[in-house]
Amino acid sequence: MDHHKAKKVVIITEKLITDEVAKLVEECGATGYTITGAGGKGSRGVRAARGGVTDAFLNVKFEIITASADIANNISDKVAETFFENYSGITYLEDVEILRPQKF
Amino acid sequence: MDHHKAKKVVIITEKLITDEVAKLVEECGATGYTITGAGGKGSRGVRAARGGVTDAFLNVKFEIITASADIANNISDKVAETFFENYSGITYLEDVEILRPQKF
Amino acid sequence: MDHHKAKKVVIITEKLITDEVAKLVEECGATGYTITGAGGKGSRGVRAARGGVTDAFLNVKFEIITASADIANNISDKVAETFFENYSGITYLEDVEILRPQKF
Repeated sequence: MDHHKAKKVVIITEKLITDEVAKLVEECGATGYTITGAGGKGSRGVRAARGGVTDAFLNVKFEIITASADIANNISDKVAETFFENYSGITYLEDVEILRPQKF
Repeated sequence: MDHHKAKKVVIITEKLITDEVAKLVEECGATGYTITGAGGKGSRGVRAARGGVTDAFLNVKFEIITASADIANNISDKVAETFFENYSGITYLEDVEILRPQKF
Repeated sequence: MDHHKAKKVVIITEKLITDEVAKLVEECGATGYTITGAGGKGSRGVRAARGGVTDAFLNVKFEIITASADIANNISDKVAETFFENYSGITYLEDVEILRPQKF
């Protein structure tokens, strides 16, 4: 199958705001997202006891694949503007290759 | 150490078919894979209650690193052909750099 | 917002040495890291029963974003040198784009 260039947006933030972030991601035009529980340490300190890392995640990681660079940039910008003054979080973009652009 | 170009294949699909996907990944020539539990929303609807995102994952994320672009493409194509008519799922590829190509 | 090039370091290794890896990552100059529980199979064999993949992760995945390619290379090299003779593990690097370089 042919491969097509696409973007992945990654958002790592507090589990507390999972629903609000998911809503904003969809409003920006994403057709789907993957969520994983995560712990770690950032500029606002440790977010989970390291020893119990798989047991009590306080962070959540969103991954969104989109064939549109505009949608990817918009999600990343909007999430940072909306949430990262009041909640800890980071966001970054990656280049990926997808098989079936109509699915994204 | 020197770095070498390699490919990462990502597969996100239903937890139900974890064993079948792992078998196919190995048959395609991968020497290993990483599995993470995941939730999310795709073209077939929400796959886990958002509020309970870390408690009851219904999806699984495979990540496979291989120094061979042919193996990477083959895994991605074969998984999509074999499973994605009947099960929800996405697959995509990324470029990565590895330290020790003999390990992959 | 403007985007800036940065590096992601990924380390997948045994859960047992989570604290030691976190310490080394910080000593190399990272300002933060994300941790996820993981299972899988590598050159030293299966690390979690596939059927119970989300229940009992024996591996841990670190992801570190840094605006400095030197810090990224150093983390990857040091972790491999320090731990991968005695513990199973892989490490690789990816290119990412970040919004706010001052946060990383």
